[in-house]
Amino acid sequence: MKCRMCGGKAVIKLPAHNIGLCSECLILFLRRRVERTIKRLRLLSPGEKILVAISGGKDSLSLWDLLLELGYEAEGLYIDLGIGDYSQKSEEKAVGFAQKRGVGLQIVRVKEHFRGLGIPEIARRAGRAPCSVCGLVKRYLMNQAGKKGGFDVIATGHNLDDEVSFLLSNLLSWQRESLARQAPSLPDRQSLLRKVKPLVLCSEREMAAYAFVRGIDYILDECPYSQGSTSLRYKSVLNKLEEHSPGTKLHFYQGFLKNRSLLKMTGEEPELHPCEGCGYLTPAQICSFCRLRERVLQKV
Amino acid sequence: MKCRMCGGKAVIKLPAHNIGLCSECLILFLRRRVERTIKRLRLLSPGEKILVAISGGKDSLSLWDLLLELGYEAEGLYIDLGIGDYSQKSEEKAVGFAQKRGVGLQIVRVKEHFRGLGIPEIARRAGRAPCSVCGLVKRYLMNQAGKKGGFDVIATGHNLDDEVSFLLSNLLSWQRESLARQAPSLPDRQSLLRKVKPLVLCSEREMAAYAFVRGIDYILDECPYSQGSTSLRYKSVLNKLEEHSPGTKLHFYQGFLKNRSLLKMTGEEPELHPCEGCGYLTPAQICSFCRLRERVLQKV
Repeated sequence: MKCRMCGGKAVIKLPAHNIGLCSECLILFLRRRVERTIKRLRLLSPGEKILVAISGGKDSLSLWDLLLELGYEAEGLYIDLGIGDYSQKSEEKAVGFAQKRGVGLQIVRVKEHFRGLGIPEIARRAGRAPCSVCGLVKRYLMNQAGKKGGFDVIATGHNLDDEVSFLLSNLLSWQRESLARQAPSLPDRQSLLRKVKPLVLCSEREMAAYAFVRGIDYILDECPYSQGSTSLRYKSVLNKLEEHSPGTKLHFYQGFLKNRSLLKMTGEEPELHPCEGCGYLTPAQICSFCRLRERVLQKV
Repeated sequence: MKCRMCGGKAVIKLPAHNIGLCSECLILFLRRRVERTIKRLRLLSPGEKILVAISGGKDSLSLWDLLLELGYEAEGLYIDLGIGDYSQKSEEKAVGFAQKRGVGLQIVRVKEHFRGLGIPEIARRAGRAPCSVCGLVKRYLMNQAGKKGGFDVIATGHNLDDEVSFLLSNLLSWQRESLARQAPSLPDRQSLLRKVKPLVLCSEREMAAYAFVRGIDYILDECPYSQGSTSLRYKSVLNKLEEHSPGTKLHFYQGFLKNRSLLKMTGEEPELHPCEGCGYLTPAQICSFCRLRERVLQKV
């Protein structure tokens, strides 16, 4: 198979785009794709100070790499979730990338906010699933770090597979509020920094290939709590459909972007007020982070 | 396991409803379910003359049985598609049911409308997939028979699995026109008879169990052209999700019914005019049935 762009020997086939590419052109292809995603979906403006949420995995590190290559001022934020070995290894990858590239990396530790407790212990004490607690805590700490550091926007490495599995889950249960919030760009509102997802049109497989050809050293392990998660089930189901009809995921997501406003799924978000505890915007009196902290720390 | 309704020995477990039922109560349960579906979705009124589209399979024969049991005046329509052995066996089942129950069954033969050609030959000559040609021809002949016979409404045996697989397919590709047309009840419009689907809230498995306990003799073979069809792929994917979260299909479909109007997916249908050839309503000048006939018969 020949590379569609340079005619050289292709090393990867991208069935969704019906092309093969060599390593060099794959990098160019994905860089252009992300550049266009940013432009068309108006995700970032030149000169903005970006905080990239880094997990140590292929998506977030590749995103950081891509943003730097595209000339953006992008600093990293690593949140230490306190999930034993997994968190330690992830941190090493994040630190390794930052050192190699000579870019800034902030580290925030969940344990410092929860008197020595990590996500697994917090979840246990709260009687909630680790993934739900983790999402809540990450969103909060990410926003806090971004605000404190004077950043304009937070960028996360959510890829096409993440987005379509979330979309499918939301559509199967008709979670209209979640559908309304599911966007490649969430605007800033008072205490909430703007959030963008520049990789929404790049598949998981494409990002793994990008990280590989760019020599990015990332953590291969999945989070130990992700096993058997519903999002993995939705991903596997969508992969099955994609296998038979390449491009299914991309069309599904692009169709969603196109029809979002038509379907009036926007503007359905609940009204937000500053939390009485910390000032973070919330639909309740006390935000869910403060409520979680209070509940969990009472028991310490 | 005990029957939830009578306390006797259950013979079937319905995980989506989290109950087990004995044979007798399964019949009652599904009869009530269909009765409520008809009432809540306003599908039929007492005294209406119903034409039931009969394929010879479990769904259509069970629907016919259910409508008769519920006291409706329901005649059958069998369309002989001209698919060799499969069509012959199907017809025997349809005729067998009608004779056993002493109810009227009309038989319409595709070959009589296409100078001796059945669906496989029509599809080949038209250069189209058999399923797409079959759907078109069946819709047309069904409507024609209903109109000629002075019926008020056509009832089809589409079950929950059929509807959610179609819904998933429509959502994955954001077919808004198809979504707008996907309803348990399509109103009548001039030349188009009203169509209803009273089994939309009953799963394929429930209908198979109903046919079994009611002793309905139906054709077990699937249509030879359905193998590898996309709808079977969507069904298998949804079955996988249902297995992990019983009730997924039902919530998906009920959520769709609830959100259809909110999402403004209604009112998106194209404008229809009478076909210049036959008077059937169509968005074009000549309806697709007349165009198909013309194209195929030119080559005979």
